[in-house]
Amino acid sequence: MDDKKLIWEMEEKHQILHTAVFDVESRRMRSATGITGDYVAIKAPDWVVTLAEDGNDFIMVRQWRFGCSQITTEFPAGLVEPGESPAECSRRELLEETGYEAGKITVLGECSPNTALFANRITVCLAQDLVPTGVQHLDADEVISYLKVPIKEVIANFCSGEYIHAYMGTALALYMRRMLKVFEKMPEK
Amino acid sequence: MDDKKLIWEMEEKHQILHTAVFDVESRRMRSATGITGDYVAIKAPDWVVTLAEDGNDFIMVRQWRFGCSQITTEFPAGLVEPGESPAECSRRELLEETGYEAGKITVLGECSPNTALFANRITVCLAQDLVPTGVQHLDADEVISYLKVPIKEVIANFCSGEYIHAYMGTALALYMRRMLKVFEKMPEK
Repeated sequence: MDDKKLIWEMEEKHQILHTAVFDVESRRMRSATGITGDYVAIKAPDWVVTLAEDGNDFIMVRQWRFGCSQITTEFPAGLVEPGESPAECSRRELLEETGYEAGKITVLGECSPNTALFANRITVCLAQDLVPTGVQHLDADEVISYLKVPIKEVIANFCSGEYIHAYMGTALALYMRRMLKVFEKMPEK
Repeated sequence: MDDKKLIWEMEEKHQILHTAVFDVESRRMRSATGITGDYVAIKAPDWVVTLAEDGNDFIMVRQWRFGCSQITTEFPAGLVEPGESPAECSRRELLEETGYEAGKITVLGECSPNTALFANRITVCLAQDLVPTGVQHLDADEVISYLKVPIKEVIANFCSGEYIHAYMGTALALYMRRMLKVFEKMPEK
């Protein structure tokens, strides 16, 4: 199909919800093929997810999550503050949630949290050369514990028990691509 | 930390937005440690993402995405309809978006799209034994093209160009774990 046929133009937009963590916008869209419709998009600050690698372990956080209504074990994550780079956010959030200082932060990739709904971006960072301070710096409404989990166990457990955050997979895919040289393993059929 | 300290109870909730694709709920929560606050959760139908494997290629879809405002190349995906299993949804959406009939559907994993915000679930399915019919069955407002992309190229390109959907990584992590035997590749440090 000709690419021009895939493009939609925005004719107008207005905010239909404001909350503390995101806003929702209604957008009147028109396709190159003449279709018009109203679609919703969620606007939020950019997010960062951090793979905190400590030897053969990842540093993980455990907390109650208000979307899925259960305790989860996840990679440390947070919202990028104004003027902050994703790498700076990664270092800050890791320190706040787990007390680990990262000597080195590497950006593994950036993508859309959900291309259909979200207008913001999510960046996956790899934190290395970790030094434990033993002191978390949590917001007043955060109740978060942290722990070390063997990397193999995180990969093996993804999509079971407390390991259910989809962005854990997003981050693991980038980690496996970079660190595990998956290409050398791929069978040709 | 004692698990009981991580648990939050819902005291009340009410809907603050209704749209065609999701609703937003405000929930008054109380932590075991005595903190109270209002948090938002997004309620939506469950979603399915399909890795459609055809030899050394994946069948992918290209379309304008209203969240990120660009053309993306993604795995076929869709909403689970009432009474439908994730595997049935996977087979139906693949046929509708690409015209490929799947002889075999395997559920690779199920998780939360975003544990902080979403109350629904996302299931990743692997579709195999594909037979092309050459006929899409699109909704009136869908403009979607489809193409074959080498699996290695999808993995290599994730987080660049049109390959920016976070759930592509979610799905690839499960695919790599299952198909590429990544554990055998993992170096011990």
